[in-house]
Amino acid sequence: MSQAVINDNEVDIVIGALHADLTTFMNEWRPIFSRFHLIIVKDPDLKEELQIPEGFRADVYSKADIERVVGSSSSIRFSGYSCRYFGFLISRKKYVVCIDDDCVPAKDNAGYLVDAVAQHVSNLQTPATPFFFNTLYDPFRKGADFVRGYPFSLREGVNCAVSCGLWLNMADLDAPTQALKARQKNVRYVDAVLTVPARALLPMSGINVAFNREAIGPAIGPALRLTGEGKLRWETVEDIWCGMCVKVICDHLGLGVKTGLPYVWRTERGDAVQSLKKEWEGVKLMEDVVPFFQSLKLPQSATTAEVCMVEIAKAVKEQLGKAHPVFSQAAETMVEWVKLWKTVASG
Amino acid sequence: MSQAVINDNEVDIVIGALHADLTTFMNEWRPIFSRFHLIIVKDPDLKEELQIPEGFRADVYSKADIERVVGSSSSIRFSGYSCRYFGFLISRKKYVVCIDDDCVPAKDNAGYLVDAVAQHVSNLQTPATPFFFNTLYDPFRKGADFVRGYPFSLREGVNCAVSCGLWLNMADLDAPTQALKARQKNVRYVDAVLTVPARALLPMSGINVAFNREAIGPAIGPALRLTGEGKLRWETVEDIWCGMCVKVICDHLGLGVKTGLPYVWRTERGDAVQSLKKEWEGVKLMEDVVPFFQSLKLPQSATTAEVCMVEIAKAVKEQLGKAHPVFSQAAETMVEWVKLWKTVASG
Repeated sequence: MSQAVINDNEVDIVIGALHADLTTFMNEWRPIFSRFHLIIVKDPDLKEELQIPEGFRADVYSKADIERVVGSSSSIRFSGYSCRYFGFLISRKKYVVCIDDDCVPAKDNAGYLVDAVAQHVSNLQTPATPFFFNTLYDPFRKGADFVRGYPFSLREGVNCAVSCGLWLNMADLDAPTQALKARQKNVRYVDAVLTVPARALLPMSGINVAFNREAIGPAIGPALRLTGEGKLRWETVEDIWCGMCVKVICDHLGLGVKTGLPYVWRTERGDAVQSLKKEWEGVKLMEDVVPFFQSLKLPQSATTAEVCMVEIAKAVKEQLGKAHPVFSQAAETMVEWVKLWKTVASG
Repeated sequence: MSQAVINDNEVDIVIGALHADLTTFMNEWRPIFSRFHLIIVKDPDLKEELQIPEGFRADVYSKADIERVVGSSSSIRFSGYSCRYFGFLISRKKYVVCIDDDCVPAKDNAGYLVDAVAQHVSNLQTPATPFFFNTLYDPFRKGADFVRGYPFSLREGVNCAVSCGLWLNMADLDAPTQALKARQKNVRYVDAVLTVPARALLPMSGINVAFNREAIGPAIGPALRLTGEGKLRWETVEDIWCGMCVKVICDHLGLGVKTGLPYVWRTERGDAVQSLKKEWEGVKLMEDVVPFFQSLKLPQSATTAEVCMVEIAKAVKEQLGKAHPVFSQAAETMVEWVKLWKTVASG
């Protein structure tokens, strides 16, 4: 699978702990996680003490740690799934891999355990090809290549900044779809990695994702928080919004976004029908969000992820602010996030 | 796999015969092809009599038939791989499936024979989603769906006009890559179909392809012929050029192009090192071809495939004509092709 040579010191695994008992989660991931440094961020809303098995190099951060770094008056809220962003902020590594605490390692078609970290790092270390589609998928994978007609001048590719992984068993559906197809499980293991073409947007999921923190770190931040945001993925769109920002920024800066392998095995959690009572807000917002990002043009002068984020925040405030108050709030949070990123980076 | 209900009378299988003995080819495809009408077009350069086993509903066209329809003075040359375009021209069916005569049916990961026709028709009958990327690939496939964050307003999709299939064993590489990796075979069966996003270009291969003739027929025509074009795929780019045209036209008309399944098993043929002596022309031309198509904008007034083709021909002549004489020739051929298409359609 992966041909990446992984330097353990270049990788942080960030876990947002929405559940107190991480015993099963950590033990399942032990063969893959144990060689890396872990950053575990406890959801500030979680009252119980975290249970973490021994044998890991893990730093654990809780509400008090967040307040110490961020200050309690910040407009950024690191609660729920957004607690993971605190881990991205304090990481000092080149690559960050982030996996939700209701996922365990998946098996491939041959029954072998998937090393999600190795695959993510391989995706990030090999070039991406956003400017022309390769029909045999990732040309840098063993046994693959560029097909006839692929321009030689584009075969060098560009740096890959983001690797979006997928999910077996419970797919990452929205609440209405999940409620409608309660028994449908994702059983298809598609053995491919591909670059999402330039100017195409995708719904980036926060469940199983990795990125090059040095290249794009400040672009992966908290922003869009639903009024009734819950503790189930289908009750949030924070990661989807973040994915829109990072894809537009990658396109602008000439960086790549890949999707496909690795898979994780996602366990069942929550009642989608219950969530339907509050979820529609996120679904409705997407109808404004997608056209906004599809037409967004960043100025030539924006040459860093920080500046791009501030530019996006400005456009969000101007163009989406009137549509719904959560957008104005998102714009403010993005500006705040970039400030915080700079402070922590220089501190 | 396929959930398509296929009306036999809606499908033509078009085979360009570059080899006289089609016995093995036809017998291998018998379980899949025998229920459909076949159009076999004999390469006009081929001297020997075609050998076609019994038991098929096949119409065979040779040089004399082509001349009768087209006239011998036409600037379009239907020789080599381009003979298949004659089959597209005279077909009267909604869907055309075209597979090279050095391919046999592939097997999927479970060892089952792949019904390439059923898969192509299924791809064409179910909607495409070019305006937003679905990370779980084709959302209309059994067991799949749209993922969280996918806008509901885009879930209806658009009509799919083109289905590009793939190849196991011998991949569709260019001569330099094939010569360099002589022993590399494509063994990875990627169990996915996906819509190529709007505004992303792909190298469409003519080896294993299908299209909705009613929607996009005139856009799939002969045009770019290399000076030293040969009888091996890696010595041609006619299909690659055609794919650029059809993708730009589909984007303009709001139609979709899918790629992925079905696979065919491609047998070995030809000596790539020998081809290197002439192939570089095609490889070099792509450096002009791709930027041209990437920046091409069709006028709003172009609302049919015919008009779009004529507009592209105009732009080719103006913008590429000076770079190389083959481009001017391609532009002329495209105009001629549209005329011919109209004549045959009305005749």
